[in-house]
Amino acid sequence: MKALRTQVLIIGAGPSGLLLGQLLQRAGVDNLILERQTGDYVLGRIRAGVLEQTTVDLLDRAGVGARMHAEGLVHHGFELMFDGRRHHIDLSRLTGGKSVMVYGQTEVTRDLMEARAAVGAPTLYSASDVELFGIDGDQPGARCTVDGERLEIHCDYIAGCDGYHGVSRASVPADAIRTHEKVYPFGWLGLLSDTPPVSQELIYGRHERGFTLCSMRSATRSRYYLQVPLTEQAGDWSDERFWDELRSRLDPAAAAALVTGPSLEKSIAPLRSFVAEPMRFGRLFLAGDAAHIVPPTGAKGLNLAASDVHYLSQAFIEHYRERSQAGIEHYSARCLSRIWKAERFSWWFTSLMHNLPHEPEIDAKLHRAELEYLVSSDSAMASMAENYVGLPW
Amino acid sequence: MKALRTQVLIIGAGPSGLLLGQLLQRAGVDNLILERQTGDYVLGRIRAGVLEQTTVDLLDRAGVGARMHAEGLVHHGFELMFDGRRHHIDLSRLTGGKSVMVYGQTEVTRDLMEARAAVGAPTLYSASDVELFGIDGDQPGARCTVDGERLEIHCDYIAGCDGYHGVSRASVPADAIRTHEKVYPFGWLGLLSDTPPVSQELIYGRHERGFTLCSMRSATRSRYYLQVPLTEQAGDWSDERFWDELRSRLDPAAAAALVTGPSLEKSIAPLRSFVAEPMRFGRLFLAGDAAHIVPPTGAKGLNLAASDVHYLSQAFIEHYRERSQAGIEHYSARCLSRIWKAERFSWWFTSLMHNLPHEPEIDAKLHRAELEYLVSSDSAMASMAENYVGLPW
Repeated sequence: MKALRTQVLIIGAGPSGLLLGQLLQRAGVDNLILERQTGDYVLGRIRAGVLEQTTVDLLDRAGVGARMHAEGLVHHGFELMFDGRRHHIDLSRLTGGKSVMVYGQTEVTRDLMEARAAVGAPTLYSASDVELFGIDGDQPGARCTVDGERLEIHCDYIAGCDGYHGVSRASVPADAIRTHEKVYPFGWLGLLSDTPPVSQELIYGRHERGFTLCSMRSATRSRYYLQVPLTEQAGDWSDERFWDELRSRLDPAAAAALVTGPSLEKSIAPLRSFVAEPMRFGRLFLAGDAAHIVPPTGAKGLNLAASDVHYLSQAFIEHYRERSQAGIEHYSARCLSRIWKAERFSWWFTSLMHNLPHEPEIDAKLHRAELEYLVSSDSAMASMAENYVGLPW
Repeated sequence: MKALRTQVLIIGAGPSGLLLGQLLQRAGVDNLILERQTGDYVLGRIRAGVLEQTTVDLLDRAGVGARMHAEGLVHHGFELMFDGRRHHIDLSRLTGGKSVMVYGQTEVTRDLMEARAAVGAPTLYSASDVELFGIDGDQPGARCTVDGERLEIHCDYIAGCDGYHGVSRASVPADAIRTHEKVYPFGWLGLLSDTPPVSQELIYGRHERGFTLCSMRSATRSRYYLQVPLTEQAGDWSDERFWDELRSRLDPAAAAALVTGPSLEKSIAPLRSFVAEPMRFGRLFLAGDAAHIVPPTGAKGLNLAASDVHYLSQAFIEHYRERSQAGIEHYSARCLSRIWKAERFSWWFTSLMHNLPHEPEIDAKLHRAELEYLVSSDSAMASMAENYVGLPW
């Protein structure tokens, strides 16, 4: 068995693991990434793409912001649609000048991969049969198989950035972890197309037929979502059926402006709220989707991963530079305080905008009253806006 | 059968009916109140007592504000208690100078009764077997029995101010009315005592043992509430048990400051959200609890009744002075817009502060995150505060 050694072993080459690797690399902390899939597979995943200002700043600090600033779209607001009307939420006015950046997670991942390749930092792709060991002691590591060869990697710390289904959280003894979960009784059917977006800003819509999100990747590539029952199959949705359903949930002006075209991708994603506590177990640290999932309404997933990675990179860098344990000791609590607030916002925004099957009519009326109140109150809009652009770290 | 005639027949001599009568009386609109109970019975009901500024202003306009201003307590804030700490919600700072008035509903009722007696406006108490007729036509009225004599009262309009269990809403054909209801799986056990309040401001507390409200009627009379299961009986709660339970739900400083004493009254009230739509049926207009109930968290009940009465008195006064139908036509929609927002606030505040039996732990965590966010965010506190002091009419 071949043996390797690094300071921080990162499990997962998604955006969390790559960003952590990049921040550590720039600070001179040796790191190695293990990824179960190929790089192309990772880049093939389609995810949301609304970045908070703090995430943008972190990508800049990581030295990977150039293409994002050139190609990303700065959004100063979004639109809330209900009862057939759109209401503008002026994020910049409501938050003292803040904005968000529309830039796909796939693009963030690509930029991080290229930056990592440029400095020659190691990523082992297609690493199978990954097993962590020694997370309770002071000689942790992992074994895995790459190109048919079994490897043993020794390290100081392990960063579990391998998502909800990854090996990292699964390696923690069940009695050391507490999980909280809420599964929503509907999914999002997404369609990607090379068509200009129906509106310059994102539209979040509540409609009696279900929630709608009109989003985009660029000025020529749109991403639309429809709330659908979990019993639906993406294969049952022709492009025409999708566009007709979308049009029926838009206000008349948007319905008339909608440009349709062939889909590049269609898929259904379930919605889940999930938190695992704590996020540190001895020498193992969970970050991003490995520790928490939010429903996608409000696009907090990647942004929460970024704040985890910020806290974790700081903790490691302080440890290696100053022999300080403070960041390591406080990692879990610091992350969770922000995570629960984002979970709260994502749950609230999801509940507000979706139709629940068999929902008592009074709940739908209460949500409509909340929407009417929201667009009539600067305080309520400011509260929504400060969550949308991201609470401070 | 004896026949009477009035312009506006008001069913119910609670605060809604009395306030409507007073406003009409001062505008020269003839009115008669029918009340099923005696005046003493009405005054014996114990209800909340936090008045919004707009309610205070309306009572002033009705000419019944003198004792309220002399004896009521102006509150510029309240306290939110959770995780063993209290957080001050500075209503005046957050709302640009607004406040609320702590003055018991019983006292409001007494002031209105005295004002009505002073001008000699008629109220028929102990009116039994009340039946409404002709609400669909233009000659409505009511029959009832008073002092063993059957009366027939003819009028132009009927105002149904007779509460949730009253005859007014029950007189509307079932297919003409839509009701929405939510019953909460817990009650409030209230205790009234001649003891100084534990704090100068109201305390709303979330605790793993249940919600607590520390309220007051004056500097020497306190009103406390405990969330209890609906299976509890007030008779099973000795004063000692109540005080011990209350103390266990307070932060250490409040627990130490609590002054206990014999109870003057103890009772359990269920919590309900209820709305009947529309609020007008031909010549019959529902107002206050006859049309809607809020759970008591945030004390919106009497204040919503006051805004209904404001709209209704304006509608009648405009009708008689200017022959305008506008207020009459718009009455229901005007009321309901404000009612649904207050229902939303009361439901939200109730859900945030109470423990639900068998609640998934994630919901309790989300509510705790919301409380932590709330006290950390001026926008969120301002949104709560503007609802608490009362949304504009």
